Amino acid sequence: MNRYWCEQAWLGGDGVDEGVTIEVEGDRIAAVASGVRVAPAGATALAGVTLPGLANAHSHAFHRALRGTTQPGAQGAGNFWTWRAQMYALAERLDPDRYFVLARATFAEMLLAGITLVGEFHYLHHDRDGQPYSDPNGMGEAVLAAAADAGIRITVLDACYLHGDVTPAGTEAELVGAQRRFGDGDADRWAARVGALAAAHAADPTARIGAAIHSVRAVDPVAAATVATWARERGAPLHAHVSEQPAENAACLEAHGQTPTGVLAGAGALDARFTAVHATHVTDSDVALLGAAHTTGCLCPTTERDLADGVGPAGTLRDAGVQLVLGSDSHAVIDLFEEARGVELDERLVTGVRGTHRAPELLTAATAAGYASLGWPEGGRIATGAPADFVSVGLDTVRMAGTATEHTLDALVFAAAAADVHHVVVAGRVVVSDGLHQTIVVGRDLRDAIAAVRT
Amino acid sequence: MNRYWCEQAWLGGDGVDEGVTIEVEGDRIAAVASGVRVAPAGATALAGVTLPGLANAHSHAFHRALRGTTQPGAQGAGNFWTWRAQMYALAERLDPDRYFVLARATFAEMLLAGITLVGEFHYLHHDRDGQPYSDPNGMGEAVLAAAADAGIRITVLDACYLHGDVTPAGTEAELVGAQRRFGDGDADRWAARVGALAAAHAADPTARIGAAIHSVRAVDPVAAATVATWARERGAPLHAHVSEQPAENAACLEAHGQTPTGVLAGAGALDARFTAVHATHVTDSDVALLGAAHTTGCLCPTTERDLADGVGPAGTLRDAGVQLVLGSDSHAVIDLFEEARGVELDERLVTGVRGTHRAPELLTAATAAGYASLGWPEGGRIATGAPADFVSVGLDTVRMAGTATEHTLDALVFAAAAADVHHVVVAGRVVVSDGLHQTIVVGRDLRDAIAAVRT
Repeated sequence: MNRYWCEQAWLGGDGVDEGVTIEVEGDRIAAVASGVRVAPAGATALAGVTLPGLANAHSHAFHRALRGTTQPGAQGAGNFWTWRAQMYALAERLDPDRYFVLARATFAEMLLAGITLVGEFHYLHHDRDGQPYSDPNGMGEAVLAAAADAGIRITVLDACYLHGDVTPAGTEAELVGAQRRFGDGDADRWAARVGALAAAHAADPTARIGAAIHSVRAVDPVAAATVATWARERGAPLHAHVSEQPAENAACLEAHGQTPTGVLAGAGALDARFTAVHATHVTDSDVALLGAAHTTGCLCPTTERDLADGVGPAGTLRDAGVQLVLGSDSHAVIDLFEEARGVELDERLVTGVRGTHRAPELLTAATAAGYASLGWPEGGRIATGAPADFVSVGLDTVRMAGTATEHTLDALVFAAAAADVHHVVVAGRVVVSDGLHQTIVVGRDLRDAIAAVRT
Repeated sequence: MNRYWCEQAWLGGDGVDEGVTIEVEGDRIAAVASGVRVAPAGATALAGVTLPGLANAHSHAFHRALRGTTQPGAQGAGNFWTWRAQMYALAERLDPDRYFVLARATFAEMLLAGITLVGEFHYLHHDRDGQPYSDPNGMGEAVLAAAADAGIRITVLDACYLHGDVTPAGTEAELVGAQRRFGDGDADRWAARVGALAAAHAADPTARIGAAIHSVRAVDPVAAATVATWARERGAPLHAHVSEQPAENAACLEAHGQTPTGVLAGAGALDARFTAVHATHVTDSDVALLGAAHTTGCLCPTTERDLADGVGPAGTLRDAGVQLVLGSDSHAVIDLFEEARGVELDERLVTGVRGTHRAPELLTAATAAGYASLGWPEGGRIATGAPADFVSVGLDTVRMAGTATEHTLDALVFAAAAADVHHVVVAGRVVVSDGLHQTIVVGRDLRDAIAAVRT
């Protein structure tokens, strides 16, 4: 048994507790006690504030190699779609070995930022010609091995991706270029492949397999129903990109006479295991559908800002009953505190109101709700029986210095940065100590992994 | 003479140079050379990328004590005006000694973030009853001493603040509460006080004195003209808060029949030494006035986002001829890279377009243009004869790792964080080395200074 003593810890309420002991047995929390004024003998003292591990509910690990490379230059402006062409060019250059190295370094960067669980929305399945690797799950296995090696808990959200786009006539465009790597041909073949991946990892203590409908651009309504059925039968999480861009909505309406949310509702996708990623350009009736079905909405503020997606109706979704969670998506930056404050601050920019989302809610989005949306409803909390995933954040850093205990949660959400994370424990194992990953030289590995996939 | 060798350096163009030597004599740069592949013997090697020192063109140092304390709680939402009441409560608790300690620690935090010049928009002049201290510039001198002790270059923008607000009838409201500390009674007394401060620091190599019209709420048109004349006669910079909130515009229109920009134009304030701070809610004709007069616009994106000000028309201002600069204002965070990307990213959220502002322009806003707006037109550049103010930023940190040389500027603007700053030189003196302030324990001093002003 390992015992930790936390100067302050957030146990899920409106403030922090002072002097909290956490006892860990194996990969679980065995006991939690508050008001312990002095660190017990033999306990590891965690200065600052300790939180449940952060959940990054939407990641495309390989996008980390795009950081800083996609900004429009002197030749003119760009948008989401010009960015996508650059992302596809990178996708062409990956194979399982390169993907393993890049994902491992990216997951290590996440751990340094206090992320203990990643939801990897995984669509890069096959080789450059669209042919399956000798192991049809070679790429997914590379991602899973990368997570295990980095020491992060993972849910692979294996994405079905069948078509290049919807056309106005309602027919689907063929996959072209890099998209050919994403496609399984049809939803039944997707289900067979992902079923094999899930079976292979059924006993993995730190990995689970979920499903994803990439988007209504890439999955037709009939195929979407197949994916939804697969997830429902297994009780697995189901994620989908929803209404990130207006053009996606327009094409969907023209093809199907419904919004993307409407199509997904019709396919039986919307329930409490469903997470709508982005939900930026949703209609009032979309919001009502998502709320009535008790779905989750995954906001990715730093990516949505980078890609000029717009500001989604986070407050309205929350009020309708949608549980919010957070993702760093394209990894323009990896900082869940910045994602958390982005939800509130971007909404301030368009409403003029401060305080739509409060710090405890945003921290719940970053922890317990994120864990639940990724199929770990027992996690993301510092409580007896929960997975032993927690992180400590310094209160003596220049960003956090001067924080009174009554304002710790507000300072975490509105001022902390990834660089303020000191210690990270995943499944009872110390992965980051004093800001250093215990087995990976993260900056060096990122540099080498990215150099290997650069044109 | 001190010689530095920079792995990469930005000399003001569209990219970085590799292998740059900077020779420093006294407080000036004596020579710069590019393409020096190996560090010369005796040179201090600066890894990563070296930039001109960053200019924080809009600071209220004491607001640092508000960080994390002003978020609306469970009791309901807030806005700019409820925030202001909290700021006033803090202003009540300061005296020159406390102000010195707090400003010194805050300026040290800025130095750690690579800020080598701060424009301190200073309005807290008098004692709690509104009476002058024995030295009428006691508070200003505290700020100047704090800057000297921390090792940062400073322009004190001494603000005239005479009235509590404009009323619909065009009469001015009396100063109440903390506002009484801001007021000099009339503009002539303001001019006499500030003239004495400027005279006392005429020979100070790292401090200059400029003027500020707090806002059209606080300064009537006749007084504004007096301040503008004072600045024009001395060639001093003149700053003013302009149209941060719609309510300010509405009150000004009702009282004066003109927008704040119109009032300032009528007062003769607009010229190339004038900086409009925020300019968030400006009209088309305001933009035309500001551009035609070759003014500067100081954007404070992290504060404007925190205070729910809205997204200003940065691209339109730039296109009209307004030079953009940056400020951290309320210090919700202190990170000029975040301010720089905020200009572009917040505009993306409302336009759907990527690339309105490019990295070299945003870095110019953060360096040379900021220096010019604060009355140091010779600074903010790595060039012979310029003040020896420069900073190095690591390219081996987890945020920056993997950056190819051709993308260094984009990575700086769109991914770097204050924590990535390694070395800071101000006026030829090494102030920060390996991320550590050379004389101040910044986290501890911030903690103590803030605890001393907490209720």
